[in-house]
Amino acid sequence: MQALPRFALAPRLRPTPYSEAVDAAGASIYSVYNHMRLPVCFESFEADCAHLKSHVQIWDVAAQRQVQMQGPDAARLAQMVTPRDLGGLRAGACAYAPMVDAEGRLLNDPIAIRVSEDCWRLSIADSDVLLWLKGLALGYGLDVTLSEPDINPLAVQGPKALDLMVRLFGEELRQMRPFGMTTGTFEGQPHVITRSGWSKQGGFEIYVEGWEHAMPLWEALFDAGGDLNVRAGCPNLIERVESGLLSYGSDMTSEHTPYEAGLGQFCQPENVDCIGRDALLQALKDGPQRQIRCLTLDGDRVPPLRAFWPVTTLGDRHAGRVSSATWSPEFGTNVAVAMIEKDHWDPGTPLVVHTPDGAKEARIRDGFYR
Amino acid sequence: MQALPRFALAPRLRPTPYSEAVDAAGASIYSVYNHMRLPVCFESFEADCAHLKSHVQIWDVAAQRQVQMQGPDAARLAQMVTPRDLGGLRAGACAYAPMVDAEGRLLNDPIAIRVSEDCWRLSIADSDVLLWLKGLALGYGLDVTLSEPDINPLAVQGPKALDLMVRLFGEELRQMRPFGMTTGTFEGQPHVITRSGWSKQGGFEIYVEGWEHAMPLWEALFDAGGDLNVRAGCPNLIERVESGLLSYGSDMTSEHTPYEAGLGQFCQPENVDCIGRDALLQALKDGPQRQIRCLTLDGDRVPPLRAFWPVTTLGDRHAGRVSSATWSPEFGTNVAVAMIEKDHWDPGTPLVVHTPDGAKEARIRDGFYR
Repeated sequence: MQALPRFALAPRLRPTPYSEAVDAAGASIYSVYNHMRLPVCFESFEADCAHLKSHVQIWDVAAQRQVQMQGPDAARLAQMVTPRDLGGLRAGACAYAPMVDAEGRLLNDPIAIRVSEDCWRLSIADSDVLLWLKGLALGYGLDVTLSEPDINPLAVQGPKALDLMVRLFGEELRQMRPFGMTTGTFEGQPHVITRSGWSKQGGFEIYVEGWEHAMPLWEALFDAGGDLNVRAGCPNLIERVESGLLSYGSDMTSEHTPYEAGLGQFCQPENVDCIGRDALLQALKDGPQRQIRCLTLDGDRVPPLRAFWPVTTLGDRHAGRVSSATWSPEFGTNVAVAMIEKDHWDPGTPLVVHTPDGAKEARIRDGFYR
Repeated sequence: MQALPRFALAPRLRPTPYSEAVDAAGASIYSVYNHMRLPVCFESFEADCAHLKSHVQIWDVAAQRQVQMQGPDAARLAQMVTPRDLGGLRAGACAYAPMVDAEGRLLNDPIAIRVSEDCWRLSIADSDVLLWLKGLALGYGLDVTLSEPDINPLAVQGPKALDLMVRLFGEELRQMRPFGMTTGTFEGQPHVITRSGWSKQGGFEIYVEGWEHAMPLWEALFDAGGDLNVRAGCPNLIERVESGLLSYGSDMTSEHTPYEAGLGQFCQPENVDCIGRDALLQALKDGPQRQIRCLTLDGDRVPPLRAFWPVTTLGDRHAGRVSSATWSPEFGTNVAVAMIEKDHWDPGTPLVVHTPDGAKEARIRDGFYR
């Protein structure tokens, strides 16, 4: 296995308020996300994964930048940019809201947070949503102030996340449903808290407001969680592929509709006046020609995936591409996220994945593992 | 000196058509630029720099993505997004064109290329310009098709760049002026060529059209340049800091006007109807309160700069921040790019730069070294 290259640091690849603590905690591999540093591995993908599934981890996900819309036209703009029907979203609630362009192609897949009547935030994946919103607001003459506020999210993830969180923010967190939202106060500073995160091990995201409040909260979480085996962690490749959590830019891109990405349940173009409405209604009518699928790959563990791997039929016809792949210790097989053409996407279909280590036999699974 | 972290690779951090060749040529440090891999070091910053100043290098700068505007409103949109007066830019010419938002703050600093009457391209720095343009085009109802075409630029840089380029593209390249533009044909495929690049050692950029044409041209450049000591290279930290070539996102950001970035000569808001016109006219009237300066720092070589270094007066008052810094073997001193407040920016002013290795005495220079 070829070693990973070294990674240049510069102010352009912005540090987070947690970066020094993350380095000190032993982060060993980084990525870049929204022009910001994102740790992706500490001890090893496998060791990090095993710990995440057993205990509780604190993740520096400040790279999930917040794009804020404030003003009389904030709600209008929020609904313009997503086919998710936000009509029922009250202040103090949030919803996963894929964003599309006029052709119905994905631009991002943020969580939309309605902070108050006229203040919305998008907690974004890796693209400059602020530029898209600024262009629209200017062109349509909207009365809205757009900004990237000084908010640096932490995720608290793992089966013991709830136990840790209640120690800092109170027992009422036990009542929160998935994607529920509340406000928690630490040392006098309120922060939005959602029951969410990029794992399926349970947990919360804390939208930490103010650079100066970030490290005190980080430290308090570690102080409070000693007996819970709390560790610094990060989104984990293995857990998220097993769980079918998609990475915008890899698994789904600006080439794809939300239907191709399997996000149809989050889109109601028939109900809303959003950008891309006509294109999405047409796409719904036509039905997707390709779609995200879970693949299992036979044989030894696959090498790290660094670029798309072509997928063919047994007869060597084009069938799609793999965008994420990993060995799963828990399930004893290689698991992959793939965009597969319609003729080949039925569960059980045998396919061939062309990896840098050679062709591997693969099979469509009826879903991801969680 | 702390080692640089490892860097995760994934399809989201897109490979270029040259990536395998760049790896094979010994790239040792990478960055991410426009969601794409950008090599930043091969042998060492110093060895790469010495070679660049003596010979010729081929750079994979595919991360300088091209954003294309095509259609009846392309020229209108191009002028909307930059205060550079593009009125005189004929088809087949290009110009450095800083882009600003409605507040006159920098969004990018591309080279604008007028390919034909109604086809423009922006060769962009690190931000999603396509999203900004798509938002504007939709909001203003412009008749323009926006895309990121399959173009993967190569830079050919160094004192022997001209000699190498004429071997492939003909003697007429000797007549080109800085920022001149022509079309060169290789194996039947035309490519835009400009006399430009992110060094001051002379050279060209080739806007290589079509993924399949990229590696044949890369290989032909190496085949033709054996006696010129041609090597794979990349934008070099030392050379570009000595030369005062600014990196968008580090040296100048969305906080700054073009005047603060020292780019006033490329802005004519009084002549054009661009976004941010009023804000820029006001900024011109007020004069900048801070501006880019070259600093020299006394003492041993500075450590790698990973986040802004504060700059103070000898009396410990805030004076600005350093955004790029390096030891310069050629000039025998540490050289830095800094944004300095008005009261302290005169040449010769002694200041203090607070590096991770401690406070260093510094001095404002009357300009960069080239």
